[in-house]
Amino acid sequence: MSQKESLNKLLEEQLPVVYSFLSKLGKRIYFPSSGIMAQAKEAKSASSNASIGIALNDDATSLSLSGVSSRIDLHSSKIFPYASSFGLQEFRENWVGQMLKKNPSLSFDNCTIPVVTSGLTHGLFICAQMFFGGETEILMPDLYWGNYKLIFEVNVGAKFVYFPFFVEQKFNLSALKKELFSLDKAVLLLNFPNNPGGYSLLDDEQDNLVELILNYANSGRQLLLICDDAYYGLFYESNVAKESLFARLADLHENIVVVKVDGPTKEEYVWGLRVGSIVVGNKNMSNASAKVIEDKLAGLVRSSVSNVSNLSQNLLVELYRSENYFIEKKQAFELLQSRYLEVKKWLNNNSDHKKYFEALPFNSGYFMCIKLNEGLDCEFVRQELLKKHSVGLISIKQNNLLRVAYSCLRKDEIKKVFEAIYFVCKLHKV
Amino acid sequence: MSQKESLNKLLEEQLPVVYSFLSKLGKRIYFPSSGIMAQAKEAKSASSNASIGIALNDDATSLSLSGVSSRIDLHSSKIFPYASSFGLQEFRENWVGQMLKKNPSLSFDNCTIPVVTSGLTHGLFICAQMFFGGETEILMPDLYWGNYKLIFEVNVGAKFVYFPFFVEQKFNLSALKKELFSLDKAVLLLNFPNNPGGYSLLDDEQDNLVELILNYANSGRQLLLICDDAYYGLFYESNVAKESLFARLADLHENIVVVKVDGPTKEEYVWGLRVGSIVVGNKNMSNASAKVIEDKLAGLVRSSVSNVSNLSQNLLVELYRSENYFIEKKQAFELLQSRYLEVKKWLNNNSDHKKYFEALPFNSGYFMCIKLNEGLDCEFVRQELLKKHSVGLISIKQNNLLRVAYSCLRKDEIKKVFEAIYFVCKLHKV
Repeated sequence: MSQKESLNKLLEEQLPVVYSFLSKLGKRIYFPSSGIMAQAKEAKSASSNASIGIALNDDATSLSLSGVSSRIDLHSSKIFPYASSFGLQEFRENWVGQMLKKNPSLSFDNCTIPVVTSGLTHGLFICAQMFFGGETEILMPDLYWGNYKLIFEVNVGAKFVYFPFFVEQKFNLSALKKELFSLDKAVLLLNFPNNPGGYSLLDDEQDNLVELILNYANSGRQLLLICDDAYYGLFYESNVAKESLFARLADLHENIVVVKVDGPTKEEYVWGLRVGSIVVGNKNMSNASAKVIEDKLAGLVRSSVSNVSNLSQNLLVELYRSENYFIEKKQAFELLQSRYLEVKKWLNNNSDHKKYFEALPFNSGYFMCIKLNEGLDCEFVRQELLKKHSVGLISIKQNNLLRVAYSCLRKDEIKKVFEAIYFVCKLHKV
Repeated sequence: MSQKESLNKLLEEQLPVVYSFLSKLGKRIYFPSSGIMAQAKEAKSASSNASIGIALNDDATSLSLSGVSSRIDLHSSKIFPYASSFGLQEFRENWVGQMLKKNPSLSFDNCTIPVVTSGLTHGLFICAQMFFGGETEILMPDLYWGNYKLIFEVNVGAKFVYFPFFVEQKFNLSALKKELFSLDKAVLLLNFPNNPGGYSLLDDEQDNLVELILNYANSGRQLLLICDDAYYGLFYESNVAKESLFARLADLHENIVVVKVDGPTKEEYVWGLRVGSIVVGNKNMSNASAKVIEDKLAGLVRSSVSNVSNLSQNLLVELYRSENYFIEKKQAFELLQSRYLEVKKWLNNNSDHKKYFEALPFNSGYFMCIKLNEGLDCEFVRQELLKKHSVGLISIKQNNLLRVAYSCLRKDEIKKVFEAIYFVCKLHKV
């Protein structure tokens, strides 16, 4: 039996629900158990190790040029060699620790250990390659990151089915319920805090969603839920659910498979370093079936990027070790929260903005969205703001929205930006 | 007309040969001209820029935590923000400059500007997604990097057709000719210096190959050639062709499309930084058709990893600016060349090794391969070497080879390693 066949056999026997969600590629992929990587791993402690395609100095340190090494205060072994396709072990352990701290109800008993991806996008892409093919329909809210289209629809060939995100300023659970229960088997993609909306579920909304999903599973139907937790942790209100849906659902029911894609990118303010993570959870996951899934995910990493920047992963390990990590992270949170509150304040103090636009509900993350009233076109308003007021926003045509990344604005700028939006809307309202 | 349709229309009209090689995904993919990235680019110089999903300090520098920033001697703008999906402009310009210097006969008049990839693997993967689908047969030598299988066959679903690399210690041009001319339209994948073989074409071999390809094109048939130039530049013999095949073929004939995948990974000894490049060339390429191809490649980057480490790209820009770059690179080359010569010396001085194995021809790169004689199994010998002699090599079962990365061995270690190989082979030869 080939390695691929034995991986699939194990998964089909021990965790048929995950196997049933695999795409054709998800079934094909494996991490070569006897290839270069596996042999190089065995050779790691050989006194003469000529297994791997790098170059060493005579003292067995990595060959390197000082134009690079002199810029970085880390040992060369943390910069130049390749990291494993599974990810740097220390980073993976740190990331598990972070997840456990943030999600007290999570245990790692029935989910995989993080496989490190080249940023959040790569985590979503790996997930898409693993589970979605030309025939997959993905149910998701009508507020979503624009790049989802390119990742899931254009590249992987899946198809989105939308439900309306909000009803009466709340998460539209009944719309989701209607769509979900029309399906015999479902794939659901949720992103909290949401990009572009900046909304996270409130405690009671999350409870209701968990109950809904449990009911679906109890009806004998299988669900694959993708949690895009890119902006995790930036929750500015006390009634926002603080745990990831992943933590609530990973151990809930044998029919529920949950994938968590997250990473330090937004949480640790390291956008340009390109480090993300993907984990998969299911109530019946054993160590053996978890290993099969990790192997398949690492096979997708190996076949798309080989491995993720060793330097970036080591910088993050150093970050978690650094003395000021908690205090600086708290300061950063408070800075962003103060901007959030400033936006809220302007909206409350200037309620006549509702003649021209309304703010969609928001409570977390980097963004908030403005829904323009009829007679105003978001792309036109965006261009006017840019040309006449030197204010840069993002327009989202399908919902006639403007996305404001208040994470980029000084408190004193926020008033100016919203007044400019108000001014342009007032001037051009038909 | 959608953006995708107008890109395809332009390419089909202006450069039908490239269009005809696109995979289904290659036809689908585009870089959104009105999406977040495009709008954020427009907003770049806005005095209040709230367009992009990062966070800024009140002084408009990137928010960052000192546990990361204190380790790197670069301005925060070169570490934390996102790089473009096309790549960092300064790096792309540097890389063009590097290519021109290394390939005097190359001009960039009829090829694309480099799109930056997350390492060489990602360049190969992007190339595979752009051009190969389930139906593609890829012609290539029977000595190839193991990960090709995972990238091209398992992930993208293409199929390899092999020809024997060597005949009588030379590149087997006639075997290639036979396979090539049996095809009405061909995809060819070549890797010089070769991994695992460490062989590059000699000047006369390259001339003959170029002539062969020209004859194929002149017969009215179309060829897509992928040049994997990962180990470019490490040429240890004077009669080795010093220019990439890409430079020889990019401007040669309208029926020849050439893709060059390369990057600093091996050339600048920065394996863990994950920076690569992909360019496409064809005699009839115009600026407009080049732009379409760049857009499609960047769309594949955006949909798989979003963008490549800004830090890594900036470190390389600094490297090219650094005072000692040329002298250190020369020293590194000389170090590797001295090891190459030591391997050659051992083989010459110990010709009775031929009772047990022969060295395949090698003249460049990091590696050389040993072909074991009948009665010796490469995987068994590898394990014996590891267990009994603490020597770590890679076994390649399909050709009964051992790959030796002499780039990792001190000169004085090389003799010891080859004596150990000799000893184990002698002991176990059936």
